[in-house]
Amino acid sequence: MNYYPVHVINLIKNIARLPGIGEKTAERLALHILSSPRAEADRLCASIQDVKNKVSLCSECFALSAGGVCKICSNSSRNTSVLCVVEQQADLVAIEKSGSFDGLYHILSGVLSPMDGVGPDDIKIKELVARIKKGRFEEIIIATSTNVEGEATASYLFGVFKTFKLKITRIASGVPIGGHLKYVDQATLKRAMDTRHIV
Amino acid sequence: MNYYPVHVINLIKNIARLPGIGEKTAERLALHILSSPRAEADRLCASIQDVKNKVSLCSECFALSAGGVCKICSNSSRNTSVLCVVEQQADLVAIEKSGSFDGLYHILSGVLSPMDGVGPDDIKIKELVARIKKGRFEEIIIATSTNVEGEATASYLFGVFKTFKLKITRIASGVPIGGHLKYVDQATLKRAMDTRHIV
Repeated sequence: MNYYPVHVINLIKNIARLPGIGEKTAERLALHILSSPRAEADRLCASIQDVKNKVSLCSECFALSAGGVCKICSNSSRNTSVLCVVEQQADLVAIEKSGSFDGLYHILSGVLSPMDGVGPDDIKIKELVARIKKGRFEEIIIATSTNVEGEATASYLFGVFKTFKLKITRIASGVPIGGHLKYVDQATLKRAMDTRHIV
Repeated sequence: MNYYPVHVINLIKNIARLPGIGEKTAERLALHILSSPRAEADRLCASIQDVKNKVSLCSECFALSAGGVCKICSNSSRNTSVLCVVEQQADLVAIEKSGSFDGLYHILSGVLSPMDGVGPDDIKIKELVARIKKGRFEEIIIATSTNVEGEATASYLFGVFKTFKLKITRIASGVPIGGHLKYVDQATLKRAMDTRHIV
């Protein structure tokens, strides 16, 4: 590191702060930025500033939005009777890519995690309840992750929704498509057996 | 990609232009930048602008420098009688890290590559010759890479230096330290045998 001028060292350090980028990769990227045309570096900076300045959260579902209500919430061809509750934007993107859902989303912007001091008031549960009370949803799909925090959040939501006269569902867990049963972990296999369905 | 606002898509595309960064990683980094504190994004941008604005090439050796002559050329404790010719800054850093050299460097800023239209006038050979004529070097080490372009550049330099009354050396090729002979490729092994030395 000390073999570079101080500005290059600073850039390497700042790039290495990004998740999953080690110092070696940061060094390679910094040298690329140094040797690439100025316009490319400017474009990169401008787009970083753009996302910080112009991207906000949708006032309805808390997904990323270029201002106001997001593309999905404002799309009149979506099925407004089904609401899918996910932890974060990346989960929404994963479901959208699968093409398996045409309803609306609600991004919790986190999961319940008492260990990290994240309680029900720290994620968008209040907003979710208000939205369900106000809307005309027929089904709420709880699609939080299946790790400890995701399952705990799902349980908490089941409790909150108990009094609502709504179909509450949980996204299925089981053997991944294309997977060998023998390689599937015990917890997943148990869940897959427990939630088996009539074909 | 289309599941993100346009500014996020732009950022993902600009990050994915960096070498070795795929679209998946770019997406992850863009979402990190979005969710991280504003100050962190600003710091990253500022350091990108800094390297473009404040880092220049050393007027002596063409290494990266924070302005004027670089730290190595201006270090009076370096051995000024030996000059090591390398292709690029990263090679200088690799040699410095090895702690095996205390002389001066000359960065060619490229290699001869007729296929890519890079000839002797496109890299810092003229400057190297002028520097050798002007300086009081006793030895020139040619430490270009051992791939086709690096070897061709080394050959060309040997030709240029032939008339100079100087010790011209080439960095050794051979079996890597800690390596098994049986795993070393034939070309390397042949070179290692050809350039064997008396101990």
